[in-house]
Amino acid sequence: MRRWNGWGDDGVVATLAPEALAFLQERIGTGPAPQDATLEAVCAQIPVSRLPEHPLVDRSPEARLRGSYGQSLGDWIALRFGRIGRVSDGVAFPESREQVRELLDWAAAQKLLVIPCGGATSVVGHLSPATEEPRAVLTLNLTRLRALTHLNREAQLAEFQAGVLGPDLEAQLRAQGYTLGHFPQSFEYASLGGWVVTRSSGQQSLRYGRAEQWFAGGRLLTPGGELSIPPLPASAAGPDLREWVLGSEGRIGVLTDVTVRVQRLPECERFLGVFLPSWEAGLAAVRELAQARVPLSMLRLANAVETDTTLRLAGHAGQIAWLERYLAWRGCGDGKVLLFVGLTGTAAQVNAAQREAIKLLRGFGGVSTGQLLGKKWAAKRFAGVYLRNALWEAGYMVDTMETAIPWGGTTAMVEAIESAGREALARFGERCHAYTHLSHVYASGSSVYSTFVFRIGASAEESRARWLALKAAVSEAIVAQGGTISHQHGVGRDHAAYLPAEKGAAGLAAIASMVRHFDPAGVLDSGNLVASGE
Amino acid sequence: MRRWNGWGDDGVVATLAPEALAFLQERIGTGPAPQDATLEAVCAQIPVSRLPEHPLVDRSPEARLRGSYGQSLGDWIALRFGRIGRVSDGVAFPESREQVRELLDWAAAQKLLVIPCGGATSVVGHLSPATEEPRAVLTLNLTRLRALTHLNREAQLAEFQAGVLGPDLEAQLRAQGYTLGHFPQSFEYASLGGWVVTRSSGQQSLRYGRAEQWFAGGRLLTPGGELSIPPLPASAAGPDLREWVLGSEGRIGVLTDVTVRVQRLPECERFLGVFLPSWEAGLAAVRELAQARVPLSMLRLANAVETDTTLRLAGHAGQIAWLERYLAWRGCGDGKVLLFVGLTGTAAQVNAAQREAIKLLRGFGGVSTGQLLGKKWAAKRFAGVYLRNALWEAGYMVDTMETAIPWGGTTAMVEAIESAGREALARFGERCHAYTHLSHVYASGSSVYSTFVFRIGASAEESRARWLALKAAVSEAIVAQGGTISHQHGVGRDHAAYLPAEKGAAGLAAIASMVRHFDPAGVLDSGNLVASGE
Repeated sequence: MRRWNGWGDDGVVATLAPEALAFLQERIGTGPAPQDATLEAVCAQIPVSRLPEHPLVDRSPEARLRGSYGQSLGDWIALRFGRIGRVSDGVAFPESREQVRELLDWAAAQKLLVIPCGGATSVVGHLSPATEEPRAVLTLNLTRLRALTHLNREAQLAEFQAGVLGPDLEAQLRAQGYTLGHFPQSFEYASLGGWVVTRSSGQQSLRYGRAEQWFAGGRLLTPGGELSIPPLPASAAGPDLREWVLGSEGRIGVLTDVTVRVQRLPECERFLGVFLPSWEAGLAAVRELAQARVPLSMLRLANAVETDTTLRLAGHAGQIAWLERYLAWRGCGDGKVLLFVGLTGTAAQVNAAQREAIKLLRGFGGVSTGQLLGKKWAAKRFAGVYLRNALWEAGYMVDTMETAIPWGGTTAMVEAIESAGREALARFGERCHAYTHLSHVYASGSSVYSTFVFRIGASAEESRARWLALKAAVSEAIVAQGGTISHQHGVGRDHAAYLPAEKGAAGLAAIASMVRHFDPAGVLDSGNLVASGE
Repeated sequence: MRRWNGWGDDGVVATLAPEALAFLQERIGTGPAPQDATLEAVCAQIPVSRLPEHPLVDRSPEARLRGSYGQSLGDWIALRFGRIGRVSDGVAFPESREQVRELLDWAAAQKLLVIPCGGATSVVGHLSPATEEPRAVLTLNLTRLRALTHLNREAQLAEFQAGVLGPDLEAQLRAQGYTLGHFPQSFEYASLGGWVVTRSSGQQSLRYGRAEQWFAGGRLLTPGGELSIPPLPASAAGPDLREWVLGSEGRIGVLTDVTVRVQRLPECERFLGVFLPSWEAGLAAVRELAQARVPLSMLRLANAVETDTTLRLAGHAGQIAWLERYLAWRGCGDGKVLLFVGLTGTAAQVNAAQREAIKLLRGFGGVSTGQLLGKKWAAKRFAGVYLRNALWEAGYMVDTMETAIPWGGTTAMVEAIESAGREALARFGERCHAYTHLSHVYASGSSVYSTFVFRIGASAEESRARWLALKAAVSEAIVAQGGTISHQHGVGRDHAAYLPAEKGAAGLAAIASMVRHFDPAGVLDSGNLVASGE
C-alpha cells in the first residue's frame, strides 16, 4: 500500500544509521519527536464533498485526501501534522479516453475545477486546490490509463496511455526489448503524462534525453476539443505543438496518449565513481566532458559538502576512512568532490567512452574508484528518497530546490542558493545542512540541485513558516542569479510567482493567452503555472 | 553582385557538361530557349511606391524587386520571364534594434504590412505580398544587423544580430576558434534569423543539430513589445518560448538577436562515399546507424535514380565506368545507392566512429570508396545549387519538395512523391526526371528530399501552371502519406494550405490565436504560415 503521508510503499522502511544521526545532530541539532496525525483523524476533518454524484467519481475522504497532495515539503507538513487545507471534492479514475472526455464535459457543465493527476509525485504543489477556490474540485486521476497501445519497432516509437507509472512502463517495454531510459528519482510512482507536462528529466538524460527529446506526439483532450500531434521525426512546419503540451501542467487539457521514442535495451551499462580534488576541478571536468561530446549516459557531480555527507551517511566508517586515506594520497583530500559517470550502450561503445572519459578526468586530477560506489548508487537510485521518511521520524525535514544556468554562473549560483537556505533558517534560530550536486550537465551549462535538511518545528505552523521562508529565499536567489525557476520539477502553484522573472512580462502574457485560448471557461484554472487571473 | 533572377553571385557561372545535357535530353526532351527579361524591363513595370517617405526606406524599383522574391521556382518563373506580380513598396535596412522598433511602430501607425526578410533564400514564397493585399507593403531587410555581439567561451554561447549571413557568421566564429556547424545548401546567402524562424536544418545536423537544438535564446520585437528569451541550458518552467519563435516565419515579430550554442572547431572531418546494393539495403543501414547512435555528423542516402543522376552529371564518363565495374564486382550493380557519411570530431572520435560505421555498413553489403567522392561532394556542397542557373539556360526548371516521416513509411512516401510529380507533368504531356535522397536521418525516421527536373513552358503562364500542378500534386501526396509539409524549408504562403492537415483544426486554431495575441492589428499578417483571416 502506498504511504499516505510520506514517500513510497509502506512496506519499505528506511532507517538512519547511528553515525548518520550523530552527523546531523552535530550539524543542526537534535530533531524533535514528530507529532504525526493518523489517517483516520485527518479524514475525519474533511468536509462533505460538494460534488454531485457521478458513477466514475469517488467522493470518499481518503481518496480525496490522497488526490490532493503530492510530495512537496508543504504537503508533508500538512499531512504529517494533520493540518490539511482545502482538499478535492472527488477523484475520478477514468479507464478510457472517452471517459476522460465525458468527465471534462461534465465538469464544464457543472462549473467544476478539474485538476489532472498522475502519480501524485509533484514537489511544487500541483495537486491541492487553492484555499480560496470557490468551485467544487474534481481530481482526474489518470493512472488506470496504463496500456502500451502500439509499438512501432522499425521507428522505435511506443504509444502508451498517459497514466502509466514508471515501473509499469519500463516492464511493458522491456518485455519487447526496449527502454525509455527515463529514470527520475520519483520513477517508482511518477507517470508518463506527468513527465511530459512538467518537462521531466531522468538521471540518464545525457543519453536518453529530457521529456522534450523523447516525447514524439500524443493526444490532449482540451475543454473545447482535441489536439492530436503526429510522431514525426522532425518538422519545420510552424510552431511545434508538442512544446505547448510540454510544461503545460494540466492548464490546457488532459494528456491521454503519449508516443515516446524508445531505444533497444543496452548491451552494457556501468556507473563509475570518480573523485576530483576540488569543486573547481570537478566543474571544469564535467564541462569538458560535455563539450567534448564524450557519449556518456550520466554525469552527476556532488559538491564537497554533499560528497562528505554521502560518505558519512553511507555507514561503514572503517572502510570509508581507508578510502579517504587512499584518495588523499592520490591528491583528493579535504574539499574533494564525487562524480558519478554513467556509461550505456554496446560493450564497444561503453569501453571506448570509458577510456575517453577516464583519460580526460585524469587531466583534472580525477581518481576513479571503479564501479564499487557506482553500483551502490545504482542499487539505491530510487531508494534514497525513502530516507525522507526516516529523517522525518528523527525530527528532520528535507527540501530540495533546483535550477539550471549557463557555465560561468554555477559556483555563484550554488553559493547563493546554499546561503539563502541557511540564512532563511537562521532567522528562526535554526541551522540548515545544505549541499548540492549538478544532476544534469549540458555543453552550455548544468542544472543545480540543492538539498536542505533542517529541524521540524514545534507545530505545523512553525514548520510551515520555516519551509516557506526557505523556499522564498532560495527562489529569490535563483532568480537573482539568472537561473530558471525549474530545471526538472515544473512550476506548480509553489513557484508560479517566480515564472514572470524568467519569461518576462511579454512571455507570461503569451502563455496566459494560450491557456485562455484552450480553456476560455477556466475549467482547468487551478493556479498551476500561471496564477489565476494573470 | 548577387544575381537578381537566379541563384548566387553573378560572377559564378555553372555550366552543364555535354553528357549531362544529353542525359536530360534523353529523359525529358530538349528544353526550349529561355526568354529571360532584363532587369531594366522588369523594373520599368513596377508601379510607383505607395509608401510615404522615410529616411530608412529605399523605394527604388530594383530594391523593391529584390526584396519581394526568394528562390522558389515560382519566384524564378516570375523574374526570368519578367511577369512579376505585386511587389513590396519599399525596403528598409535597419542597422540597430532601435531602428527595427522605430520601423515597426511607424508601420503600425501607417497601417502598412511588414514582411521581415533575411537573405531572401526562401523557397516557399515568404517574401512576395499577396496580389490582393490592400495595404502598402514594407520589407524589413535585416542583413545589416550582422555583428557577433557577445561570445561566452565557457558556456559556448555566441550572441549575434539576427541578420548575419552564413559565411559571415562562420568567419566571425572561426576567428575565435568556434563553429555553429549549420550548413544548409543555401548557406552562402541565408541568414541566422531566417534559419531560426523557419526551423532550418543543415547538412551536418546529425552532429550540430537543427535550429531547434542550437537556438538558445534571443530577442523578438513584436508589434506590442519585446520577447526576451534567456539562453538557459534547459528549463522545466512551463512552455518553452523559443519554440514559439522557431517556425514563426515573421508572423509574431522581428527577431533581432539570436544566441546560439557553438562548438569548438573540429580537429578532424571526413566525408566517405559508400555504395549499397539496393535502396532497401541503404534504408536499413542508415536506420541502424542512427538507432545504434554511431556518432556521425551526416548521413545522406540517394536513391538509385539520384545515384545514377549524380554519376552521369559528374562528367568523367571513363572513370565512372571503371568505378561502376568495380562496384558491380563487389555486389553493387544496377539499383545501387550512394550514401555519404560525415565524420566530425577529434581524430580519435572520427577514427572510432568510422570503424563502427564501416563495420555496420559492410553487414548491409556496403562498399566504401573512401574519401574520393566525399571530398568532391564537400567541395561542391554550396556550388551545386548554381546548377539551377545552367539548367534554366538549357531550358529546364528544377523544383524540390521535402518532408519527414517515421521509418516504415519511407519507401511508400518516396514512390508517392516521385509519381505525383511525374503524373502532374504528364497531364501537360511533359516528362519529369524525379529523384530523391534522405538528407537527414533520425532514430525514428528521416527526411525525404525530392528533386524534379522538367522543361520550361512556352510562356510564363504555361511554366507556372506546370509548377503549380507539380507542387499541389506532391503536397497532396505528402499529406496523404502522413508526412510533414516541411522538414527544413518552412511553410510560407506556398504551403500554408497544407498546414491544417498536419496540425489539425485545434492545432491550427491555437497557432492562429498565438499570432493574434502577438499581432492583434495584423501588421505582420503576410499570409505566411497561417493564411490571413484563419
